[in-house]
Amino acid sequence: MFEFELLACDPESGARAGSFHTPHGIIPTPVFAPVGTQATVKALRPADLHALGASLILSNTYHLYLRPGDERIRDLGGLHQFMGWDGPILTDSGGFQVFSLSETREIDDDGVTFQSHIDGSYHRLTPEKSIEIQENLGADIIMTFDECPPPTDRDYVERSLARTHEWAARSLAAKSRADQALFGIVQGGIFRDLREESARFLIELDLPGYAIGGLAVGETKPEMHTVLEWMEPVLPKEKPRYLMGVGAPEDLVNGVMRGVDIFDCVLPTRLARHGSAWRRGERLNIRNAQFKDDPGPIDSACACYTCQNFSLAYLNHLVRANEILGHILLTTHNVFFLIDLMNGMREAIVEGAFAEYARAFMSHYPQENGD
Amino acid sequence: MFEFELLACDPESGARAGSFHTPHGIIPTPVFAPVGTQATVKALRPADLHALGASLILSNTYHLYLRPGDERIRDLGGLHQFMGWDGPILTDSGGFQVFSLSETREIDDDGVTFQSHIDGSYHRLTPEKSIEIQENLGADIIMTFDECPPPTDRDYVERSLARTHEWAARSLAAKSRADQALFGIVQGGIFRDLREESARFLIELDLPGYAIGGLAVGETKPEMHTVLEWMEPVLPKEKPRYLMGVGAPEDLVNGVMRGVDIFDCVLPTRLARHGSAWRRGERLNIRNAQFKDDPGPIDSACACYTCQNFSLAYLNHLVRANEILGHILLTTHNVFFLIDLMNGMREAIVEGAFAEYARAFMSHYPQENGD
Repeated sequence: MFEFELLACDPESGARAGSFHTPHGIIPTPVFAPVGTQATVKALRPADLHALGASLILSNTYHLYLRPGDERIRDLGGLHQFMGWDGPILTDSGGFQVFSLSETREIDDDGVTFQSHIDGSYHRLTPEKSIEIQENLGADIIMTFDECPPPTDRDYVERSLARTHEWAARSLAAKSRADQALFGIVQGGIFRDLREESARFLIELDLPGYAIGGLAVGETKPEMHTVLEWMEPVLPKEKPRYLMGVGAPEDLVNGVMRGVDIFDCVLPTRLARHGSAWRRGERLNIRNAQFKDDPGPIDSACACYTCQNFSLAYLNHLVRANEILGHILLTTHNVFFLIDLMNGMREAIVEGAFAEYARAFMSHYPQENGD
Repeated sequence: MFEFELLACDPESGARAGSFHTPHGIIPTPVFAPVGTQATVKALRPADLHALGASLILSNTYHLYLRPGDERIRDLGGLHQFMGWDGPILTDSGGFQVFSLSETREIDDDGVTFQSHIDGSYHRLTPEKSIEIQENLGADIIMTFDECPPPTDRDYVERSLARTHEWAARSLAAKSRADQALFGIVQGGIFRDLREESARFLIELDLPGYAIGGLAVGETKPEMHTVLEWMEPVLPKEKPRYLMGVGAPEDLVNGVMRGVDIFDCVLPTRLARHGSAWRRGERLNIRNAQFKDDPGPIDSACACYTCQNFSLAYLNHLVRANEILGHILLTTHNVFFLIDLMNGMREAIVEGAFAEYARAFMSHYPQENGD
């Protein structure tokens, strides 16, 4: 259980192709996990996720704890049974969303007290409570409880790091189920020594996988890439690496070439609900008047249900008329776009052609200018 | 084209089983048509409609004329191509929705002037304009332009009936496409002589099908049934009969036993968006606290995707969390419920067991008390 097989490594970059074994199936890596915040990937049925080739989905401990309640989900057979998804699931620790969604929160060395964004009721999360909730939910991959500090405030990051490490050890001590893999979360902001210290601490705990947390929260893209480059030689090669909350197409390519195996992000589903769709190098606003009479698909090279069956003109109409089908069809396309990209990268790594694949894909995007 | 084959008639009631041939396929009757107001059956993809066994869908001339525009749809290849639905489509004349949705409208003997509910712009519909729009859309079945009067106001109904008949003749004269069947609409409120006069007038026009309009708009259920019973012997047996805007399960059974072949209604999709689902004899409010921990499906006898895969507890969670998947799954169930009911009735008619089928189904519903 939780074996991570490395199938191929790109000789020119950190990119690797692998397979991560879980109780609910094998996750081919690199992988993008669509986010099912409230036990549903918005606008998609489990059957649609399978058809899109999704192999891992993420769900949020904070949301499910508040509604419908982790004990209720446990009593109904666990999260897989509850949401009708028989593939692998990852749950986060709840910490990040307490910090980002709750208006009132008090953090101390033991945990965090917060008010529900739904009804204002008071709750407390600690490492032990987070693990208890995640065990009730029963995901295949669960996360240590951590604090996600502002990445450029060195004093704060340093103090917070000690707390995050203690919480990681307490998370591991609290864990009781053998059928869940507990991943640790490396913090340390944009500071190399702190990042390396954090990685070393977590490696000591000998966890089955490591996340690189505290990124995509305000730092620049080059800063993010630099942190990933520091981590690549430090994190153990034989364990999967997870970059949390990243999901723009170009960021996935940049992450994979720096050794990341797992990504998750609300971006494909959220953009869809805002009427946007990706194609290589572009993010289209489907509502734009230019698409009103366009008989072509979003992307003529795309094999998704949306591009195979519907014109931009029709999608433009659905978005303007605020029809649910617009959300469904754009979500279908955006999630497929990312899964197809990950599959393309994986295949290229296995075939020893990753550099070429990445170069071709990135040629559609403006080059970074270093700031 | 537009042949209506009668396969079997129930000896004890008006119920019949048939097949109506259209350019986009055969419609087995009796049939329930889900409504795709804005060129989409809300929350369902065309692939889902096929999987549910839908054979006919309805779309609304008023809405499509205003947005995205019937000429645009024509230029994009017609409504079938536009919405990706290759089965039969029926469009209404637009009249009913002008009367029900537009705040400002002036009716005269030539037509009606109204303001768009979207942007307040002024528009005019006449029989000729309605047919022009419906020809641009290109549905298989199109409707004569009519007025739908308050059913119990005899003076108004009588004056309106003359206008509706003239408009029917003008609709027929304006029609130019041979690949569309123009159905007439019988009006006359709850008055037997007016209903019979209307039917006779339209029969004279020798149209390929007849709708019974102006019902389900405020009269009682017994009044509606009485009108259907008056129409049953008057309307030609060899042509399909269409009861507009009716779609509660018990009303479908009551309609079929009174000789109706085609129904349409927004009820299954609208109820779904309001968090309600049918089972025999019941309409469940899925949001109710009683379902929070219920591990069973909406209907343990139901073969739909929703009932096969999801608990009431999960559906309750989706509805409370206002998740799109809640709309999708409840719509799937409600539409399947009606299509399954129609299939059951058709099979029973063919097998000579309709009375039994109808009795068993209706035993779950309170009997009418005549008011």
